[in-house]
Amino acid sequence: VRRVTALAGGIGGARFLRGLRAALADIHAEITVIGNTGDDITMHGLRICPDLDTVMYTLGGGIHEDQGWGRADETYTVKEELAAYDVGPTWFGLGDRDIATHLVRSQMLSAGYPLSDVTAALCARWQLGVALLPMSDDRVETHVVIDGDGQRRAVHFQEWWLHLHAGVPAQDFVFIGADEATPAPGVIDAIRNADVVLLPPSNPVVSIGSILAVPGIGDALRTTAAPVVGLSPIIGNAPVRGMADACLTAIGVETSAYAVAGHYGSRADQGILDGWLVDESDKDAADLLTEEGLPTRAIPLFMHDVDTAAAMATAALDVADEVRP
Amino acid sequence: VRRVTALAGGIGGARFLRGLRAALADIHAEITVIGNTGDDITMHGLRICPDLDTVMYTLGGGIHEDQGWGRADETYTVKEELAAYDVGPTWFGLGDRDIATHLVRSQMLSAGYPLSDVTAALCARWQLGVALLPMSDDRVETHVVIDGDGQRRAVHFQEWWLHLHAGVPAQDFVFIGADEATPAPGVIDAIRNADVVLLPPSNPVVSIGSILAVPGIGDALRTTAAPVVGLSPIIGNAPVRGMADACLTAIGVETSAYAVAGHYGSRADQGILDGWLVDESDKDAADLLTEEGLPTRAIPLFMHDVDTAAAMATAALDVADEVRP
Repeated sequence: VRRVTALAGGIGGARFLRGLRAALADIHAEITVIGNTGDDITMHGLRICPDLDTVMYTLGGGIHEDQGWGRADETYTVKEELAAYDVGPTWFGLGDRDIATHLVRSQMLSAGYPLSDVTAALCARWQLGVALLPMSDDRVETHVVIDGDGQRRAVHFQEWWLHLHAGVPAQDFVFIGADEATPAPGVIDAIRNADVVLLPPSNPVVSIGSILAVPGIGDALRTTAAPVVGLSPIIGNAPVRGMADACLTAIGVETSAYAVAGHYGSRADQGILDGWLVDESDKDAADLLTEEGLPTRAIPLFMHDVDTAAAMATAALDVADEVRP
Repeated sequence: VRRVTALAGGIGGARFLRGLRAALADIHAEITVIGNTGDDITMHGLRICPDLDTVMYTLGGGIHEDQGWGRADETYTVKEELAAYDVGPTWFGLGDRDIATHLVRSQMLSAGYPLSDVTAALCARWQLGVALLPMSDDRVETHVVIDGDGQRRAVHFQEWWLHLHAGVPAQDFVFIGADEATPAPGVIDAIRNADVVLLPPSNPVVSIGSILAVPGIGDALRTTAAPVVGLSPIIGNAPVRGMADACLTAIGVETSAYAVAGHYGSRADQGILDGWLVDESDKDAADLLTEEGLPTRAIPLFMHDVDTAAAMATAALDVADEVRP
């Protein structure tokens, strides 16, 4: 059995994981996904885990394909009614189907179940074919430090991302609660006991970065016997989707496949990467990184469909085999 | 200004109140409704107040007219999704539009607002034209004692009513929490300072009975200077709607307009009624009750529409004027 562990954020991570599952369909593999919960939020009393749900819906066949998040055939009756009651906020896309997920989650959390148990219970319906673990059962929330009329203030990541459309420059990201958080059950073992660890092309700051902010996870990556291979979410100095550039700029990292590799760092230099994949258009960066000691391969990194995502996963697994000590 | 206070349960009460509002449209009147909360229930983490909502939607123009409860143009997406997660119960008709009401309510209650404030906030949207007060801000839940395979057990009223369809004989009704409950702010004053108090044709046991179970409300009715006039929910030995017969039988009261009047009792005999209205088909009962000392009038008591409900309300106000000390 080949044990593959992946850290994942939302859309990009979920689509990559679907490719990974396809790439491993014919061999006996166990895939464990450590999902970001830093963008979780409570709205209208509902506990919402956007990244976990995107992974769950994508792998479970319930995702809105074009949109990349939320449910297919979604309706927004509850949201319209909430607006009629004039209770905010209205900028969060809270669909009716999606609300059922949040109701089940919120009720189980209120009853005292940890998020990892809740996530497993929700996933039982969707039959992902992977084990989905939240990075932590503790509350960790990503807040964004912005300049609000001359005064620094922090807003929840979702407000900055969805409401402000990342249009107000982020000055910093703070993972509130991370210091006190512990990895959810199974997370550290999944990294330690893996044959391969993958970093999908998720946002390095607010998806992977928040996972790495949980004490113990970074150390596990730096010390696991498994090769750790990442895929760049940046192609030709622009994020494939989302607003990773705004996030990278805030933490002083250039928006390039080369710079993100440097941000993660190679294990030879106390970083977390043993191998790196960049888009074919970034071949120069691949050559330079390889020369500098981080084995890097340039391949097509646009996920048009499951097949292209599977090809990326296969390439990542190949790189892992090559760099395996 | 004419101050009219009414106690109300669900469908029958709400339709009567719509008639009352119409009957008083041309004069300066203040209508206060004391709503039953004994059938409130928490489902999927949502706090649901079926009777308050039926009054709110009916007077606010959002009611499903044929059904008598729930929202017009309702959809059931969330309910279907909850069923797909295999989380029960499934026998409660939880509509998407309705869920928005419950989300607002649940969140406000969690934030510490009393139910009376929450109800006022919800009603602000619906512009009822009446003040709707819950009977109490404290939790009072009507449970039904039934015989479960030889053993007495109590089930929540909603389970008995909606799930068992009142098909298992009720042996008793218990208003859990009533002993410790206090009337919501404004309830006692609304009875004491009223010019008229009305008991709409609501279920005498589980709608009006639960309101009367709150300490202080019965005393206020027995001692108010205002005439108290009720309308029979029973016509010709059968309830107009619902299963009031099953409720009355459980507490040893015959299903008749005459017996319900006796159950409430006339104020001359330490009861709460100064006047009573029965259907024209129950004229014999009216004569007998009047002879026995309770002024009773027989009029058409079927509420086909707002006009017939308004005619009933007008008749009740007329009786109040006649019996006024």
